[in-house]
Amino acid sequence: MTVTTPRGFRAAGVAAGLKTSGEPDVALVVNDGPDAGVAGVFTANRVKAAPVLWTQQVVRGGIVRAVVLNSGGANACTGPAGFQDTHATAEHTAASLASADVHQIGAGEVAVCSTGLIGERLPMDRLLPGVAAAVGSLGDNGGAAAEAIMTTDTRPKTTVVSGAGWTVGGMAKGAGMLAPAMATMLCVLTTDAVAGPEALDAALRAATRVTFDRVDSDGCMSTNDTVLLLASGASGVAPSETELASAVTAACHDLAQQLLADAEGATKQVAIEVVGSADEDDAVEVGRAVARNNLVKTALFGNDPNWGRILAAVGTTSAAFEPDAVDVAVNGIWVCRGGAAAEDRSKVDLSGRDVTIRIDLHAGTTEATVWTNDLSHAYVHENSAYST
Amino acid sequence: MTVTTPRGFRAAGVAAGLKTSGEPDVALVVNDGPDAGVAGVFTANRVKAAPVLWTQQVVRGGIVRAVVLNSGGANACTGPAGFQDTHATAEHTAASLASADVHQIGAGEVAVCSTGLIGERLPMDRLLPGVAAAVGSLGDNGGAAAEAIMTTDTRPKTTVVSGAGWTVGGMAKGAGMLAPAMATMLCVLTTDAVAGPEALDAALRAATRVTFDRVDSDGCMSTNDTVLLLASGASGVAPSETELASAVTAACHDLAQQLLADAEGATKQVAIEVVGSADEDDAVEVGRAVARNNLVKTALFGNDPNWGRILAAVGTTSAAFEPDAVDVAVNGIWVCRGGAAAEDRSKVDLSGRDVTIRIDLHAGTTEATVWTNDLSHAYVHENSAYST
Repeated sequence: MTVTTPRGFRAAGVAAGLKTSGEPDVALVVNDGPDAGVAGVFTANRVKAAPVLWTQQVVRGGIVRAVVLNSGGANACTGPAGFQDTHATAEHTAASLASADVHQIGAGEVAVCSTGLIGERLPMDRLLPGVAAAVGSLGDNGGAAAEAIMTTDTRPKTTVVSGAGWTVGGMAKGAGMLAPAMATMLCVLTTDAVAGPEALDAALRAATRVTFDRVDSDGCMSTNDTVLLLASGASGVAPSETELASAVTAACHDLAQQLLADAEGATKQVAIEVVGSADEDDAVEVGRAVARNNLVKTALFGNDPNWGRILAAVGTTSAAFEPDAVDVAVNGIWVCRGGAAAEDRSKVDLSGRDVTIRIDLHAGTTEATVWTNDLSHAYVHENSAYST
Repeated sequence: MTVTTPRGFRAAGVAAGLKTSGEPDVALVVNDGPDAGVAGVFTANRVKAAPVLWTQQVVRGGIVRAVVLNSGGANACTGPAGFQDTHATAEHTAASLASADVHQIGAGEVAVCSTGLIGERLPMDRLLPGVAAAVGSLGDNGGAAAEAIMTTDTRPKTTVVSGAGWTVGGMAKGAGMLAPAMATMLCVLTTDAVAGPEALDAALRAATRVTFDRVDSDGCMSTNDTVLLLASGASGVAPSETELASAVTAACHDLAQQLLADAEGATKQVAIEVVGSADEDDAVEVGRAVARNNLVKTALFGNDPNWGRILAAVGTTSAAFEPDAVDVAVNGIWVCRGGAAAEDRSKVDLSGRDVTIRIDLHAGTTEATVWTNDLSHAYVHENSAYST
């Protein structure tokens, strides 16, 4: 059920002392092949962490044999010295793998991911020995790797999706989508399918577009977000592009929902279904505007089906709609029809964790769903107390 | 020090029973002339409350003799019936003013503003008698009018700015800029200057562009925001357009800062000064991105000079800048230089209420300031408990 479920992968998770808690904080995923294909999707933030800048270059090279990940520090906003630290980490990983006779590779085949506080250098005197230790404990340890990348996650997130003779495995971390205070959503997917770089890239982009890209917690874009897909080809089976994209999407969807479920400050898991839109972009824009609206999110925290705030959020978008034609349902009760009050709001049951907001724009036939959480006291507490 | 300080204006504030608390909730401002010029700026939200739709029409007519305002209900998302309620309120105001021999005017010269919960009809059986009562108590009562438009404001906001022989007065309400839960910022400005409609419009737009438009509390655009400027010409003095714009800007700035100071959930009043931008739009975009960032706002609530989150927010914009060239100071301490850590963050004193974040993009010579508050437990509490 992890990144080591597909054939051709080994992993490790060890404690290097980056976290003051002594919890595991260095993970390693190695692709034993025969292939070493890779695709990557990265944060759109223009302020990118050193490991993102590094790994973007590595992915462009088309071959990744190893991914080394650390929690306990984001290595973002650390200047040229921070980039040198990432480079040194990749070099040390390659050298350790070579000296342990695992793989004879260069640093250019090593992807690096980091997560933790922004603006501080990594303690390289602990990280590098940790990398060597991880190499020494490589094996069927996808679970340990998933634990080592946790920050304020309360549980590791892993997944597996089976194809016909091939599988996709994955792990992810996110300090709750409501609170990416650790500045990062990291995800590593593995597959033993045979797939070329174009197919991998197409599958990963198709998957993230409708999963991670539509989970909008607090609108705060991270400096470190990285999603990698590694292909070993060890199954000998080459699925169609559609089959591969479908499996990768299922894996990403599962992991994204696990992130939402573990959102640290959240008491609600909210699906915003926008239907009747003129096009898909409109639906996503509307869903995102509602997902990012603090007044909607605090209302949900208060078990308040405040459809007026939802409508006010819809009104900030450029989507095609007429204000007096919009319908809104909260957990199945159409509290707003034609832009005005309809069914009695007291009928809405918001006592559970799951909330579905359905918005019908009556402007077309397309739809999209965006997921979010509520805005709670715990969110404020967690994020105001984080670095001090 | 109120809307009745300039010559030619009377006002009233009465309790009509719209608020369950029994506090004043209906305000009236009457322009006794000789002129009855008006300019207005309204919410950009496409979901506009009935009084906004009405008052936009009235302002286009160019003449406003009376502004009637109510708290205790926004009359937003109330459909055609809600618009009829606004129309009836204007008609009743005109009729009451006529029967009291104050002014013989039609409903088309009456602006209407409402503030309170979205999605509920106004209790017209209370509002209309309240309007009549307000007409009966017209006088030098700008203070009472300012009190009657309060929602969760803890104190009324009024201002006066003196010109050479003429003045600008004003009142505003906002449930704290951090928490426009009542869905509205309302402001009425009065002046006894002699000014044509173009001069009034130019002055008001110039003023709001650099004051109310740059106060960004929680990014939630209201359905009811209205700023009106009424001119009586009673001073007989015609200031230059520059003089008028300068005085109106000073009045708006004063009221905007009072709104920030009374932000209910806020513990910090934050000025985000963006300098070294390629153009003013870039500076405003960067300032707004930082002002709206929940991670920055919660950090400030926690007295945490978390410049990494500030940089991550800057990175989400399209402004011209190089990530490794940005400097950030918090309360005068340059904690970030060239996109990386600089002065010791422990030097930053965040114990007070006022916070200044200065961001130098090193991309040009223009600048702009955006104001905001922090994101606190009280914000979450206030907005999750509001309508229930």
